[in-house]
Amino acid sequence: MISVIWHSTPDTDAITSALVYAHYLREIGEQAQAIRLWDINKETQYVLDQAKISSPKLVTSLDEGSHIALVDHNESTQSIDHLDRYQLHSVVDHHKLWDLETSHPLLLRFEALASTNSILYKMYQERGVVITAPIATLMLGGIISDTLYFRSPTTTSFEKSVVPKLASIAEISDVEAFASTMFSEKSDLGDISIYDLIKNVDAKDFTFGGKKSLVACIETTNPDYCLARKDEIVETISDIKSKEWYDCVLFCTIDILNEKNTTIVADKADEQVLEKAFGARTTQGIADLGDRISRKKTIIPPLQEALS
Amino acid sequence: MISVIWHSTPDTDAITSALVYAHYLREIGEQAQAIRLWDINKETQYVLDQAKISSPKLVTSLDEGSHIALVDHNESTQSIDHLDRYQLHSVVDHHKLWDLETSHPLLLRFEALASTNSILYKMYQERGVVITAPIATLMLGGIISDTLYFRSPTTTSFEKSVVPKLASIAEISDVEAFASTMFSEKSDLGDISIYDLIKNVDAKDFTFGGKKSLVACIETTNPDYCLARKDEIVETISDIKSKEWYDCVLFCTIDILNEKNTTIVADKADEQVLEKAFGARTTQGIADLGDRISRKKTIIPPLQEALS
Repeated sequence: MISVIWHSTPDTDAITSALVYAHYLREIGEQAQAIRLWDINKETQYVLDQAKISSPKLVTSLDEGSHIALVDHNESTQSIDHLDRYQLHSVVDHHKLWDLETSHPLLLRFEALASTNSILYKMYQERGVVITAPIATLMLGGIISDTLYFRSPTTTSFEKSVVPKLASIAEISDVEAFASTMFSEKSDLGDISIYDLIKNVDAKDFTFGGKKSLVACIETTNPDYCLARKDEIVETISDIKSKEWYDCVLFCTIDILNEKNTTIVADKADEQVLEKAFGARTTQGIADLGDRISRKKTIIPPLQEALS
Repeated sequence: MISVIWHSTPDTDAITSALVYAHYLREIGEQAQAIRLWDINKETQYVLDQAKISSPKLVTSLDEGSHIALVDHNESTQSIDHLDRYQLHSVVDHHKLWDLETSHPLLLRFEALASTNSILYKMYQERGVVITAPIATLMLGGIISDTLYFRSPTTTSFEKSVVPKLASIAEISDVEAFASTMFSEKSDLGDISIYDLIKNVDAKDFTFGGKKSLVACIETTNPDYCLARKDEIVETISDIKSKEWYDCVLFCTIDILNEKNTTIVADKADEQVLEKAFGARTTQGIADLGDRISRKKTIIPPLQEALS
């Protein structure tokens, strides 16, 4: 049995691509299941509901030596703990390749497309695996989520050509409304704690130039939800930095509809990082990062260069 | 312009796959060329002659920042010097993933197939790129070379199904004769120096458990050519170990037709490695490694485990 797993603080592309890849593996004759290691956000739950697919099984631990496949990530810090205790079956991802090594040849399928589901769409086509309506709904949700419905600079012509085809299979006639509901669901963060807002909505760990960094990106149609909590966020970032040994923590509020990144910064050290990486001035803990709304394409590369 | 490069001490699969991938890239609208960083062996020259394709251009250095694509390898020690000075466009490979990292998302296509040309065949099919007779001849040569015409344990059903199709496109009616000529060309090592026989016919560097290792595999229809030179080989291995700081050097004579690996060992330390890795006894510098004729599948994995 191959367990298909996603990255920590999973987004909709991660979770749907795990389900879509597990289905693909079963269709080509493997035993596979997507498993749930973490909680699912409201945007993802909406997509699962539309696809009439139940949330993957919650698995808190896997037996040593279990077969696993990774989707939508490859860095060990973003994966299941003790990745090296498992037998890696394959990886499907659209991020830069980081500290992954394998003990033998296996399937690695990386492409510079906007979502892992875009790559999986290709794999279904190449192998002649039928894309059913539920699978099309999952793929559509993943692609819309990762491209912010074509607003993100990571969007390629491939996603633009695939989305209408998937919408047709999924029998979703109003894709705009589907995307809008996804984004308002994602923006409904309820009574989440400030700690979870920073660490557990959509944050990724990186180590650049030996510096342990966290970049949280809150994609929302309601940026005021975060910005009104600036003081608490600054205080909690300082706490996280000292207790969890981070050198740099950035909290990016991504206004999906207006394509704007407003970043909350906790201290002078991170202010200097922002200045060096993006030429951005920080005023009272807030920096305007303009249209840098893609962590992968417009936030991480300059940050990596500044920290390395 | 993307320069497609192969690994050091290139074999026929490496060189043909560079030419085949460069052609693919041009067909999908990129500017690309296969370049030659090293010499070509007689087996490869025979395949190029049959395909009526001239040897790639010899390039001794590339400008810093040049775009490069890697085929048939990914480890930095097996690649062009100063790999990090170039802009990596993509990697197509069928080896384990080792110390590769990328600064941004790009195409990585790794599959556990017997040759890089098998993966390229899939990519041509998926993209609808026409396989011409010269390209089919190159692919056929690469697959036959890496599978030792289906004798290697790395051979999959995919290669067995693809070879007749390629032979038909290439208008090669007698594949057996084509393979036999390839192997006798490969076995004709002429008046090569013992140093080149060890280091520059088909040798790969690895570092396992901090130990710098070299595994030379001489695939031949005439194993006596090497075995008769055992004493000189032992002497030269000792010299290489001390001058080039290798911890372990194995010289495997692979008898293609009888599927036998007879390995020449220079000293007690390497004898112990062979004992630990393969349970093999060494007598007068010679160890019988049985049917371990695939470096990738049956030699490296136990060696890695023994050294780590």
